[in-house]
Amino acid sequence: MPTFEEVGERALVGMIRGIVAREGCPDNLDDDAAVIAMPSGDLVVCTDSLTFDRHMPEGMTYEQFGWMCGAANVSDLASMGARPTGLLASMNVPVSMDVADICEIVSGIDQCAEFAGTYVIGGDTKPGNGTVAVTAIGSMEGRRPMTRSGARTGDVIAVTGPLGGPAAGFHAIRNGIELKESVDCLMEPIPRVEEGIAMAESGLVTSCMDLSDGLSTCVNTLCRASRVGAIIEWDLLPMEEGVRVINKALGIPEKDMVMDWGGEYELLFTFDRRDIDAMTDTGVDFHIIGLVTDNDCLLHRDEKYEVIGDGRY
Amino acid sequence: MPTFEEVGERALVGMIRGIVAREGCPDNLDDDAAVIAMPSGDLVVCTDSLTFDRHMPEGMTYEQFGWMCGAANVSDLASMGARPTGLLASMNVPVSMDVADICEIVSGIDQCAEFAGTYVIGGDTKPGNGTVAVTAIGSMEGRRPMTRSGARTGDVIAVTGPLGGPAAGFHAIRNGIELKESVDCLMEPIPRVEEGIAMAESGLVTSCMDLSDGLSTCVNTLCRASRVGAIIEWDLLPMEEGVRVINKALGIPEKDMVMDWGGEYELLFTFDRRDIDAMTDTGVDFHIIGLVTDNDCLLHRDEKYEVIGDGRY
Repeated sequence: MPTFEEVGERALVGMIRGIVAREGCPDNLDDDAAVIAMPSGDLVVCTDSLTFDRHMPEGMTYEQFGWMCGAANVSDLASMGARPTGLLASMNVPVSMDVADICEIVSGIDQCAEFAGTYVIGGDTKPGNGTVAVTAIGSMEGRRPMTRSGARTGDVIAVTGPLGGPAAGFHAIRNGIELKESVDCLMEPIPRVEEGIAMAESGLVTSCMDLSDGLSTCVNTLCRASRVGAIIEWDLLPMEEGVRVINKALGIPEKDMVMDWGGEYELLFTFDRRDIDAMTDTGVDFHIIGLVTDNDCLLHRDEKYEVIGDGRY
Repeated sequence: MPTFEEVGERALVGMIRGIVAREGCPDNLDDDAAVIAMPSGDLVVCTDSLTFDRHMPEGMTYEQFGWMCGAANVSDLASMGARPTGLLASMNVPVSMDVADICEIVSGIDQCAEFAGTYVIGGDTKPGNGTVAVTAIGSMEGRRPMTRSGARTGDVIAVTGPLGGPAAGFHAIRNGIELKESVDCLMEPIPRVEEGIAMAESGLVTSCMDLSDGLSTCVNTLCRASRVGAIIEWDLLPMEEGVRVINKALGIPEKDMVMDWGGEYELLFTFDRRDIDAMTDTGVDFHIIGLVTDNDCLLHRDEKYEVIGDGRY
C-alpha cells in the first residue's frame, strides 16, 4: 500500500470514512462536526489537533497557540450553529518544555472557552512532541444543525466578514510591516459563535462551513458535499484592509491572500436568494459573494471565468 | 519556571486545573471524564491520547493500538457508568506511514466502538509524529455519574476482575513464554462498559475509577479524591492466571504485576458494606479487596501493614 504522503489527506480521509461508516453511524461524516441525537436536542462534537511545528507561525506566543487550538474547534461548532458547552484539551508536550509555557497554552484555550461562553472541562497531559488536540462539545438547543450538503442551485453564497487577514498578517510579520489588525486575524482569530447560532436559529441557511481551509478549498468542498457548482464574483469579495497594503508593498496577488490561504474563521454559507431580507433581519453581518450553480466552481473576474482550484489547505 | 519533567505530571495537572477552574466550571475535574448537565440526562466526555513510541509495546499490531486508543476512553466512560454514544479520533501520523497501517489503527478504534455499542462519528487526520487522541462521549441516561470522590470510611473496596494480566503478558512476550490470555489482557483489554452501567444503575456505588494507572496508584488517587484511607488485603486480590506463571518462571514479584503495573481495565469501586447482597444482585462480577479507612492507604500482607506508594504509572 502507498504512504499517507502518496495518497494525500483527502483520499485517506475517504478511506477512513469507509472503514467507520457501519450501519447506524451518523451520516454527516463530511461536516465540520459530528451530530449525536439526544432527546433534548442534538449534540455536536468535533476534534482538531494542532502541532507546534506546523501551526505556530513566526511570532506566535504559546497563549495565542492555545487560543488557536480552541478557536479551530469552536469555529467548527459555530459552522453547525451549536452553542459551545465544553472543551477538552489533550496535550502532548515535550518533557523539556517550560511549565510556564504549557500553562500559557492552557490559558489560551481557556480564554477561547470563556469567549465562547463555556469552560475547559477536562483533558489529559502527557509527554510528547508538541501536539494539542482539543475537542469541543456543543448543543443545538433544538435548532437544526447546518451542514455542508444542502446548497441548492440558485442559492446565494455569502461570508460573514472580510477575508485575507491571516495571509496579510503573515506577510506583514515576515516583512516587518506594521499591520496590527491583520496580525490579529492570524494570531487570535474570532470564531463566529453568535453568528452561527443566529444563522441556525433563522432556519434560512441551506449549507454552511467555516473558512479554515481558505475560500477556494472551501467552495469546492461545500459544492462537492452539496453536488452543486458555484460562481464567485471577485468584485464582491470583502477584503481585510491589510490585503491591499501587502499587495501594494510586496506585490503578492490579492487572490492568493483572499482565496487560497487558510486560517480564516469567517463562515461560508448559502441561502435562498428570496431570503436576503429575512437574513438581514437576523442581525448577522454578511456579504453575498456569488451564486450556487449546477456546474463547476468558477471565479468571475475581469469578465473572465476560471475554475477555482483548491488552495493550499 | 521549571520544566514539565521537573515538576511532574501530577503537579502540572494541578496547575492546569487552577487555570481552567473559573466560576461555573464543572467541579469534577479530577474524575476520569467530564460531566455536562443536559435536560435529558448528564452527558459524559473524556479524551486520552496514545503515542506510538510510548504506548505500543513490543508485538502490538496497529489494529491493537487502535483498539487501545478506543478502550482507554471507553473505559473512562465505563468508570462513570455512561453508555458510549460516539468516538472521535484525532490522528497525527507520519507522512511516510503506510496507508494500510493507518487504516488498521482506524479499524481497531472502530472495533472498540462496535464493542461499546457505538460508532466513530468524526475526527481529523494530519501529518505528525504518531499521536492518536480519541474522545469518547457517553450518556448517563438519567443515572448519576459515579465519581472518585464519594468513598466513605467503612465502605468495602472492590474490583470487577483479576489483576496483573497486562504485566504478565508483557513479561511473557519479552521472555518468549506462551501465555495467550495474559497477552490478550495487554493487547486487547476489555473496557467494563456493561458493568459500569449496571453499577451506576444500582445507585449503590460510592466511588469508582478504572485501573488504567494500576491498583497502587489508583487506590491512592481514589482515596485522595475522597479524603479517606484504605486497607487492601493481599490475600483477597484476584490475580490473572499468568501472574503466578511469570512469578515462578522469572521471579518477578507478584505485587509488581498485580499492583504496580498499569494498563488494567477493570474498575475499582467502593460501596457500603451493608450493600454486599444488593451489589451481588446487580449481576456484576466483583471481588472485595479491602476496606475504606480514615487513615493512610495500606497493604495488609503476611500480618504486616505497609504504605501503598504510587506504582509506575
